[in-house]
Amino acid sequence: MGQQRVLYGYWRSSAAYRVRIALNLKGLPYEHKAVHLLNHGGEQHQPDFQALNPQELVPCLVDDGQVFTQSMAIMEYLDETHPEPPLLPSVPAGRARVRALSQVISCDLHPLGNLRVLQYLTAQLGADDAGKGVWSRHWISLGLQALEAMLAGNVATGRFCHGDSPGMADACLVPQVYNAVRWKLPMDDYPTINRIHEACQELQAFQKAAPEAQPDAPTAA
Amino acid sequence: MGQQRVLYGYWRSSAAYRVRIALNLKGLPYEHKAVHLLNHGGEQHQPDFQALNPQELVPCLVDDGQVFTQSMAIMEYLDETHPEPPLLPSVPAGRARVRALSQVISCDLHPLGNLRVLQYLTAQLGADDAGKGVWSRHWISLGLQALEAMLAGNVATGRFCHGDSPGMADACLVPQVYNAVRWKLPMDDYPTINRIHEACQELQAFQKAAPEAQPDAPTAA
Repeated sequence: MGQQRVLYGYWRSSAAYRVRIALNLKGLPYEHKAVHLLNHGGEQHQPDFQALNPQELVPCLVDDGQVFTQSMAIMEYLDETHPEPPLLPSVPAGRARVRALSQVISCDLHPLGNLRVLQYLTAQLGADDAGKGVWSRHWISLGLQALEAMLAGNVATGRFCHGDSPGMADACLVPQVYNAVRWKLPMDDYPTINRIHEACQELQAFQKAAPEAQPDAPTAA
Repeated sequence: MGQQRVLYGYWRSSAAYRVRIALNLKGLPYEHKAVHLLNHGGEQHQPDFQALNPQELVPCLVDDGQVFTQSMAIMEYLDETHPEPPLLPSVPAGRARVRALSQVISCDLHPLGNLRVLQYLTAQLGADDAGKGVWSRHWISLGLQALEAMLAGNVATGRFCHGDSPGMADACLVPQVYNAVRWKLPMDDYPTINRIHEACQELQAFQKAAPEAQPDAPTAA
């Protein structure tokens, strides 16, 4: 029997979306298990899933019986165990740059707009939908401004975030742009980000990973 | 002339604290440049620093003329360019575990209590000091609960987060505990975290990196 690989995710989770892109770029097949973040009080909080990931967050990858959490850690693991095509460049300074670009999104931008944070804003601070929109657009635009400067001002930027092959930073960028559009953030100020996003969307690895292409996505009315 | 290494940081920044620990564990000397996050409207927003790091956040490491940002990316860079002693284990699954532990803190916990987020809570959502305390303790306790479960329930945990040598996860954990204590979070529920924290505090690399030991720390009244 071959290796079994199961990705616990949610169609609209940015972090799960990143890992789907990485798996597709590597050409690694996987079984998709949906964890509905809203139904039944959030399936991520149920004991079965909590036993897999005490953080009660998606994604969670079970690879041949071993459990992996945190999207960037999972992508690095995939890169180390399946080196081709690489998600990170070979030179340390380049690797640091790709990781930094990824972390601008994964550490400083995305967690602030996560579902649980928005739920807290509503329940504890009385924010309504408009307030949540203002909050989300504030942090996304701040993060994308920094990213645009880091990408536009650097000769290492190519067709993709780093050079002419897609990698970990692109796998972080595309779900974040999806999220920005969802919050109706005007995207005119980010020409380099938009250009890279379009280049990514031409690739099947990104198309297949899109939220709307997932089995747990709601069908259009 | 030897290699010049400058760390732009702030005594109480958790992310800068992580990098100081990593540099000390590696025995790498560096020049400390203070970026005062509160004075002059925040020195991180001034053009000189913004040119170094468009994100306007510390830490920022300038290593032999090259600029590096994002604490985890910097630690990985140090580990790749100065492999001994290692900050990450050699096996991919172990590396993934250390990265995931680090990212629980660096992605999902720490950014929510960052200065700029607390400033937003006050300015835009009218939170007072008590409200900011409730917010901070909520996210820190949620993160530390998950970390405690990941550490206590895993045979790979040793004297430190992973095995019996300090590494990247410990460099993330100790500043986060410092931050939790600062917010007066009761620490009784985290015995494994407390035990590892104490083991770290016995080491000079951690002692020398402590906020109060930095040249820009205010002197006690």
